[in-house]
Amino acid sequence: MAPSDTISFARGAPSLDIVDVDGLSEAARRAFAQDPAGSTAYGTAVGYPRLREWIADQHGVSVDNVVVTNGSMQADAFLFEELVGEGDEVVVEKPTYDRTLLSLRQRGARLHAVELEPDGIDTAALAALLERGARPRLAHIIPNFQNPAGYTLSAPKRADLLRLSAEHDFVVFEDDPYVALRFSGQTLPTMLSMDPERVVYASSFSKTVCPGIRVGYLVGPAELISSVVQRATNTYISPNMVAQAIVYEFCHSGALDRSIETVKRALAQRVQVLTQALTQELPEARFVAPEGGYFMWVTLPQDTDVHAVHQAAAARGVAFVKGTDFLLDGGENTLRLAYSGVTPTQIEQGVSRLADAVHACAAVRT
Amino acid sequence: MAPSDTISFARGAPSLDIVDVDGLSEAARRAFAQDPAGSTAYGTAVGYPRLREWIADQHGVSVDNVVVTNGSMQADAFLFEELVGEGDEVVVEKPTYDRTLLSLRQRGARLHAVELEPDGIDTAALAALLERGARPRLAHIIPNFQNPAGYTLSAPKRADLLRLSAEHDFVVFEDDPYVALRFSGQTLPTMLSMDPERVVYASSFSKTVCPGIRVGYLVGPAELISSVVQRATNTYISPNMVAQAIVYEFCHSGALDRSIETVKRALAQRVQVLTQALTQELPEARFVAPEGGYFMWVTLPQDTDVHAVHQAAAARGVAFVKGTDFLLDGGENTLRLAYSGVTPTQIEQGVSRLADAVHACAAVRT
Repeated sequence: MAPSDTISFARGAPSLDIVDVDGLSEAARRAFAQDPAGSTAYGTAVGYPRLREWIADQHGVSVDNVVVTNGSMQADAFLFEELVGEGDEVVVEKPTYDRTLLSLRQRGARLHAVELEPDGIDTAALAALLERGARPRLAHIIPNFQNPAGYTLSAPKRADLLRLSAEHDFVVFEDDPYVALRFSGQTLPTMLSMDPERVVYASSFSKTVCPGIRVGYLVGPAELISSVVQRATNTYISPNMVAQAIVYEFCHSGALDRSIETVKRALAQRVQVLTQALTQELPEARFVAPEGGYFMWVTLPQDTDVHAVHQAAAARGVAFVKGTDFLLDGGENTLRLAYSGVTPTQIEQGVSRLADAVHACAAVRT
Repeated sequence: MAPSDTISFARGAPSLDIVDVDGLSEAARRAFAQDPAGSTAYGTAVGYPRLREWIADQHGVSVDNVVVTNGSMQADAFLFEELVGEGDEVVVEKPTYDRTLLSLRQRGARLHAVELEPDGIDTAALAALLERGARPRLAHIIPNFQNPAGYTLSAPKRADLLRLSAEHDFVVFEDDPYVALRFSGQTLPTMLSMDPERVVYASSFSKTVCPGIRVGYLVGPAELISSVVQRATNTYISPNMVAQAIVYEFCHSGALDRSIETVKRALAQRVQVLTQALTQELPEARFVAPEGGYFMWVTLPQDTDVHAVHQAAAARGVAFVKGTDFLLDGGENTLRLAYSGVTPTQIEQGVSRLADAVHACAAVRT
């Protein structure tokens, strides 16, 4: 049984201290006051019009290219229903987000997992795969501070990917919920901005406003967005207008920018504490310090059994997600640490417990 | 082209004057203040725990029997995915809600449309259908103030339906969004309360709080609910916690009861004005005055062409939904009037325009 003070590196969610609850409350007050009809009525499946416009402006596209949904997972689901049928080939990163893997497998997609390197998906390996005859309908890419690895796709590889997409006629699904959370290094242009015809872009306000607000969106070719809107209408008539009106007021008032600064400052500090603690307590761990986002991928010595470590860690009051959850196979010596929901003090104590668990398992083996 | 002052009897949505916007704003303030963590975090797919409990209490069931979703259409979608496969037989009322028809047809269901009488589905006809060998998986029933007809299922027919469900082993899907809006007559027990093992119950806060809040729910056997929760997790991780926390505070504080009184008072008055206006201006129209809800079904003389009337009405600045939209076939002389979104003055003027349109079409025919 896990101790009651378990420290969780498991869930990619913010700690409450970096959520601007007062700002949300004020945004809700303004939403109902400024637009009582729009925020309380059904609206339509395109989303709350003012927020849709705000998003379109951010990406320099027309509102016809945008649909705002109940969280970006729901947007993914609509997109996959639209584009991915039984037996269709889809390229995913290796490792990648476990829910995306599950969702694509449930649709009967044939997955090609292409190695993720610290500068993003191995585009040479992807090119070779395509040369050997793979015919993907879609490549799912998390370009910034990838979940689970924390890696970021480099500018040259973004161009490579778009070139391959044009040559082999597949859609690049740019799944980008962490983009605003860069705390070091240079912001790179979105693939959407580089080639709006070949890219469908998804993002979310879960990491910049709060997850409980469940507002995400898709940007893509108008015809595809229109099909997604039809699907959304048939599924739920319209998404949450109250929540979307709150997000709009939060963005419009400048609270969003302040919130992002708060979050980035906290994440930068947490990464620093995390990498320092790992270096000291678990020197055998290999990792690349992320430049943004929530996650860091940790590789332990080759003979590690992550399932045993997971169990030993739970007994010591520390939780993480096993690397194997993000892979179709392999990864028995890897794990994902989410530092978004833990304070610096918790990080230090959590890493101590984790190191203790790793060493206890290693001692059993030797 | 429709005049810019078109009066709409088309959409089943409340007019803004019967939405308690101030109460919602206050509920939002309290939600963020009382439970900042619960309202802003992901939560889980079961829904916001306090609201789930409140709903369970209302129906006298355990929380394990309840899942709270992003509107009740989304709940229906999960339920249909769970229970209705390609070729499965489903009983629907004739007429019934157009979105339900569409949703079931898209799943490839084989629909049996059973006549809806002023006291609810023709259970004798259903019994005969079952005797002839129909093997439905599900019967979709809107028991109170049905959409589109406004009719209510009588107590004896509720019992009949449950008896048939037990004898022929099908699930009764009790789709009950209007139940709280009874402004005359006696409230009847839900079929859920009569036989919780055979019934899956859906309802919503769209008609008692506001549609833009998109909060609905299912009540049913724990095992089925658990499967729906799994489906919801895979689709969107969790529903809107901010919206559900607002609804909880709205219910808990008593604002819900006050809102329901406001809505019922307005609807009762609107029905009175509507029936009076129809009697005066369109004496050939047949209808049953509803005891609650949003809708009234109107039957025009047999040789009416509702498509022509719809067009003539649009030209005169009045909108409604053609009866044919709610039927697999037939209904060319019927229409649905929604009185939820129109004021008494608009109703009088709207009925004048409608009568003018009907008479203009009749004059062409004769």
